[in-house]
Amino acid sequence: MIEKKEKYNVAVAGATGAVGRKMLEILQERRFPVDRLKLLASARSEGQSLDFNGEKVIVEELRHDSFEGVDIALFSAGAGVSREFAPSAVKSKCVVIDNSSAYRMESDIPLVVPEVNPDAIGEDPGIIANPNCSTIQMVVALKPIHDKFKIKRVVVSTYQSVSGSGQKAIDELKTQTQELLLGNESNPNVYPYQIAFNCIPHIDIFLDNGYTKEEMKMVNETRKIFNDDSIQVCPTTVRVPVFYSHSETLNVETEGPVTASAVRELLCAQAGVSVVDDPKNNLYPLAIVGENKDEVFVGRIRDDISRDRAVNFWVVSDNLRKGAALNAVQIAELLIAHP
Amino acid sequence: MIEKKEKYNVAVAGATGAVGRKMLEILQERRFPVDRLKLLASARSEGQSLDFNGEKVIVEELRHDSFEGVDIALFSAGAGVSREFAPSAVKSKCVVIDNSSAYRMESDIPLVVPEVNPDAIGEDPGIIANPNCSTIQMVVALKPIHDKFKIKRVVVSTYQSVSGSGQKAIDELKTQTQELLLGNESNPNVYPYQIAFNCIPHIDIFLDNGYTKEEMKMVNETRKIFNDDSIQVCPTTVRVPVFYSHSETLNVETEGPVTASAVRELLCAQAGVSVVDDPKNNLYPLAIVGENKDEVFVGRIRDDISRDRAVNFWVVSDNLRKGAALNAVQIAELLIAHP
Repeated sequence: MIEKKEKYNVAVAGATGAVGRKMLEILQERRFPVDRLKLLASARSEGQSLDFNGEKVIVEELRHDSFEGVDIALFSAGAGVSREFAPSAVKSKCVVIDNSSAYRMESDIPLVVPEVNPDAIGEDPGIIANPNCSTIQMVVALKPIHDKFKIKRVVVSTYQSVSGSGQKAIDELKTQTQELLLGNESNPNVYPYQIAFNCIPHIDIFLDNGYTKEEMKMVNETRKIFNDDSIQVCPTTVRVPVFYSHSETLNVETEGPVTASAVRELLCAQAGVSVVDDPKNNLYPLAIVGENKDEVFVGRIRDDISRDRAVNFWVVSDNLRKGAALNAVQIAELLIAHP
Repeated sequence: MIEKKEKYNVAVAGATGAVGRKMLEILQERRFPVDRLKLLASARSEGQSLDFNGEKVIVEELRHDSFEGVDIALFSAGAGVSREFAPSAVKSKCVVIDNSSAYRMESDIPLVVPEVNPDAIGEDPGIIANPNCSTIQMVVALKPIHDKFKIKRVVVSTYQSVSGSGQKAIDELKTQTQELLLGNESNPNVYPYQIAFNCIPHIDIFLDNGYTKEEMKMVNETRKIFNDDSIQVCPTTVRVPVFYSHSETLNVETEGPVTASAVRELLCAQAGVSVVDDPKNNLYPLAIVGENKDEVFVGRIRDDISRDRAVNFWVVSDNLRKGAALNAVQIAELLIAHP
């Protein structure tokens, strides 16, 4: 926890990126008690300004001495930047909440989703890691099911939006779609293939076991967050031509006698979850509805017809908010919550 | 089988629809020995003409007496039309290959995928049903795995293109995408919600068990095609903003000791399958590549890391071709194949 103050000096490293901008938006929306705000980015963005609480804040170059007097730094500038600068921030007595993959699997670094494992944050945190977007929305939905029925295995397929690859990917989907509708060619740049009107079963790099790094994040981060290495996860992660929000199909097998109706009840009571599940009235979660919302939306909850002790459901959440910026700001809120 | 002739009189019912047009294209491409071709549709389309082998063929109104002298009728005009007119065709000694869902689950009607169960066609067929698109591409990929390792359970999630809902849906995705990129509203018509830049976990109507009819087709048709009610299938079917080709993630559990490398070898030898599986070189099946191709493309073949005796893979195929028109023409080819 952080020493109690009225307001805190906050830095955002990677402030001009898609997640960085979302962090500013959310700090403001949730009235986080910010005293001084430092916006940090690469030299390329130095001198740009961004609005915060009605004032223009100038972006400064991220440097090793940027964190003097800063209480909390939110990092979202990629794993390389985090590895280079987070230790300097910690040396300056600043707590780092890191949205990159750099520290997630280090055994002495907590990996935190506030609705799931808030207690993983120790008394004297240095760096706290924010999980990957596709993991966060999954574990929020799994949490009450694991508590009650103990999860054995999850088979998950994702439908991930392009905003997970940053602003350039959002622009690529838009431009490419326009060009294709005009009958023109449009060479891919961010993705290895055309993403407009296509699905690409490839997110992050391929590893030797045939899974992608994105897929193995869902396996390893889930186990770390639940502090339970017995949970088996079998993921396929797929990029789809959607701008915001990831969708996921989950098939969940449990030790205990799980049922769809028990899961529905548990999820209705789960903080951070909104159950949208009335198929007869065409009500189920949708990416375009999840966009810019805080909740993890769950629907299509039904018993598995292929085996006992298993359920299926469909999970949607805004990958830039709960999947990244919001989760990081919620961790910051935990840090300053004094009983 | 049909009495041997040099050429056959063929009718296409629903000739002006997306699948009907594809049937004409494929009959022509594969040089099906057509003597007289009858194009049948509702009164609304009467008098239109379509090209076939360089000649214009006039569309006639589908009537109960349309099938006099016709040897083979390919139906693709919806279940209601099939139920009304297929019996009349059979009375006229015409063999019906029906692409609708009308007869698929009737116990005395064969449900056929030529690479999987050609022998289901008896000596004196009346109606032969063509399975649903999402089922066909799945069972072609499952066939050699079931033969060798016996499949116990499949968890499948689909990424289905809009062409599965016909020409109106193709137009809707195109127009809606254009309007949204211009910043305009675009009310959905074919689908209950915006399909552009969105994923809709709802195909066909919802049933009492919480699954859609499309999902239950994948369960029931798979069992019938393999003639094995012990195969368990747990599907989630999702519409995505793609024009042509369905993609599917499959997790397959077997009785026998299946491995990814054994599956890769089996699928490389399987008729109708093209293995595209070299992730280190970014090679895997893609909807935009599957479009207008005949094969069922399989890739991302890998051992399940969550349990033994299970594998994952990714299956892509053109839903209008192998998923509908091509499979129907292949059945017609079986009917006229005399040893």
